[in-house]
Amino acid sequence: MSPSHPCHDPSWVRAQRIRIDSTRMMADRVGATHGIRPAELAALAGRAKAAHDALARRRAAGELGFYDLPGQDTAPIDAAAAWARGFENFVVVGIGGSSLGPKATHQALRHPFHNLLPPHERGGPRLFFMENVDPATIAALLAMLDPQQTCVNVVTKSGGTAETLANYMVARAWLERAGLDPARHLIATTDPDKGDLRKIARAEGWRTLPVPPNVGGRFSQLTAVGLLPAAVCGIDVAELLAGAADMAARCAAPDLDDNPAYRLAALHYLAATAKGKPITVLMPYADGLKGLADWFVQLWAESLGKEHGLDGATVHTGQTPLPAVGAIDQHSQVQLFVAGPNDKMTAFVRLERFADGVTIPPLHKDSPALGYLGGATLGALLNAEQAATEMVLTDGGRPSYRIDVPELNPFAFGQLLMLFEIMTAFAGGLYGIDPFDQPGVERGKVLTYGAMGREGYENLLGS
Amino acid sequence: MSPSHPCHDPSWVRAQRIRIDSTRMMADRVGATHGIRPAELAALAGRAKAAHDALARRRAAGELGFYDLPGQDTAPIDAAAAWARGFENFVVVGIGGSSLGPKATHQALRHPFHNLLPPHERGGPRLFFMENVDPATIAALLAMLDPQQTCVNVVTKSGGTAETLANYMVARAWLERAGLDPARHLIATTDPDKGDLRKIARAEGWRTLPVPPNVGGRFSQLTAVGLLPAAVCGIDVAELLAGAADMAARCAAPDLDDNPAYRLAALHYLAATAKGKPITVLMPYADGLKGLADWFVQLWAESLGKEHGLDGATVHTGQTPLPAVGAIDQHSQVQLFVAGPNDKMTAFVRLERFADGVTIPPLHKDSPALGYLGGATLGALLNAEQAATEMVLTDGGRPSYRIDVPELNPFAFGQLLMLFEIMTAFAGGLYGIDPFDQPGVERGKVLTYGAMGREGYENLLGS
Repeated sequence: MSPSHPCHDPSWVRAQRIRIDSTRMMADRVGATHGIRPAELAALAGRAKAAHDALARRRAAGELGFYDLPGQDTAPIDAAAAWARGFENFVVVGIGGSSLGPKATHQALRHPFHNLLPPHERGGPRLFFMENVDPATIAALLAMLDPQQTCVNVVTKSGGTAETLANYMVARAWLERAGLDPARHLIATTDPDKGDLRKIARAEGWRTLPVPPNVGGRFSQLTAVGLLPAAVCGIDVAELLAGAADMAARCAAPDLDDNPAYRLAALHYLAATAKGKPITVLMPYADGLKGLADWFVQLWAESLGKEHGLDGATVHTGQTPLPAVGAIDQHSQVQLFVAGPNDKMTAFVRLERFADGVTIPPLHKDSPALGYLGGATLGALLNAEQAATEMVLTDGGRPSYRIDVPELNPFAFGQLLMLFEIMTAFAGGLYGIDPFDQPGVERGKVLTYGAMGREGYENLLGS
Repeated sequence: MSPSHPCHDPSWVRAQRIRIDSTRMMADRVGATHGIRPAELAALAGRAKAAHDALARRRAAGELGFYDLPGQDTAPIDAAAAWARGFENFVVVGIGGSSLGPKATHQALRHPFHNLLPPHERGGPRLFFMENVDPATIAALLAMLDPQQTCVNVVTKSGGTAETLANYMVARAWLERAGLDPARHLIATTDPDKGDLRKIARAEGWRTLPVPPNVGGRFSQLTAVGLLPAAVCGIDVAELLAGAADMAARCAAPDLDDNPAYRLAALHYLAATAKGKPITVLMPYADGLKGLADWFVQLWAESLGKEHGLDGATVHTGQTPLPAVGAIDQHSQVQLFVAGPNDKMTAFVRLERFADGVTIPPLHKDSPALGYLGGATLGALLNAEQAATEMVLTDGGRPSYRIDVPELNPFAFGQLLMLFEIMTAFAGGLYGIDPFDQPGVERGKVLTYGAMGREGYENLLGS
């Protein structure tokens, strides 16, 4: 980031800070059956202190690397990006945390039709994902791309993700069939030392980037996992990190009153455990933030959906995240949110300024259904719909909070990522579970290994 | 459909029928706390009979047009499609039922990178949507397209949807600025008589297609709403309708034992009301069916999420639909599904044969994490993962059912649409609500009109 970048201007930074309004989560707005009383938040102080201390302890022990990513040296990522930008196509082979973050960032910060733009308007290669092991998608993608013009980024923190390795093998054979040297087209993003992918990359002399061992997959968006695809497509990675740093600083306080991430986590926790809200909706009113909602789904679901023993009994924790996009879902899910069971809380995200202004032209002035729209901007209509939905929910005793984003830029997006990550980590402490593991998916992996004949797993698909 | 089309061959039809396995919903597989006992299904017989009779009555009264759409004359749609195929771009201006269905059908049945293909490989114009009133998306789309080469399909059943009309006005001004006659680029899909859009189209001599008044927006995929975009992109509309007709015939029986849609509706209803399953996951293991899950979300949420009076009290009905895609969500949501609260049921959809076979090449044979994958197909890996996830859920006492699709073609997709539509309509009867209205979104519309200054709505945003 150049010294003249606006991130260095304190007044710019202040103006770009996202703001959180959680008043509609509270009992005085939605009633005490569904809303939270200040006394309930106060009563959480002991649990909150324990959660904060646990995070601080693990952080001091070097276990929670995601907090420190804003301060990383991005020179290796910049260098790799400069190389990859020489290709026409950049293909991320990754799944879960290795695809959701890069997709979300790209969707928020690049042209909505990036891959359709001519090269000179695009500001980087076309971006594709080999995510699922769906043969229809994979065959179609590889048939369409010119291997000579394609860089393949294989992303798996552990180096052992079956879907990613299968797709890597398919992509590699495709490069080889074209007579190309795979090592000149492949770049691995993986653990710096461990795993089979690291071994192969080392033996064959691929370019590689590390994923810090103390950063879990779903917290890895601000490592090379997310930053390399972002930099390749021309996103200002330094501004993204500056936004994350600014939010980390805002979320340093130990108590619920002064730490916005902790406060939101506490509201989610109380809503889920004391107010009958097993579901939380994340509903940005911006097409570009659909990917953020999908990224959040993994973060929240996989971090907090846990089974653990407590006083001899088995407890199942977690709140189910539901993605939505306004105003689209006003014509899909909002009927259920407004009239169905009062079993949800909703987090809105709203943009205050839109990069492109579009004014609705003053046509059909005599038509009741059309005339009134002329002269307004699309952004004003969109935000009026957000306000209306929020009001209807509040009046119906249904809790919500809102995040106001001054404008959608890398600085804002970095703030959102860090806010949700700290909120999730802290919520894990409130639930008394480890938000950084995912033991529930291990048995499925083992059963799949068995079905696929992996050595040592052959006899597991009994029933 | 030509007489030689395989749809006319009974053995082809039999082989292409989707199959439903709901045994894992039952108590003998997942226990009586979370699973359904045959006696509970039997006890529903009276309610089921009333629901069937109500549907039959409304159908006889001509209110439920969606049942009869497979028998429609598609000549007007074919003619409109032939005209629209002369353009390079086809833009659907629509939201909710007017966009979710066309998107789902296109995603399932066309090339996954349709818009990136060269014209001769595409089999039709590029397909775009003006769905949300997000100025970033709208400005980017219109800046990218050549208006001369663009057909704009304005789709709103009522003719009064604010977002659609706002985007139509923006698109119209864009055509006019290019010196074009809007009537030569616009085609309206709307009520045959009512609404402001019909009036304008009639006055100006646009091409138009009707949405039958007795078919609601979210049940309109097999009207011109969904069929025109499908036909424009080269999808075999007759085969789609033949699949829907076949499923409608399979779902004609009045009782739960012989009617697959009724049986699934009853299982959903019992899971939601008697087994603590407020959430239902629809999880196809195929990228092409992601749009089907999004389409189902609207159908299920908006049809069953209702507030109504019962014995003097207010009751809130509905089950929250959650979209997922396997194997992607095994790295996102499955941890929560497996270890979190047992508050969900899951509907899997699985393909038996994939259109494109991709074999994983036999590379890295000495690597434990990679070697075992070589020689298998991606499809086999994908379906092994589905089987593993299903088994883990079942073993954990978590109910699910599975729909097996022989192969993803228009005939199969038509079956899926009709199955879910009849299931939803019948579920409304079990809940004792009207699945064809959406009163809960009216107040938000009114508040938005007020904020935008629509005549007669000015003073409503008081609080």
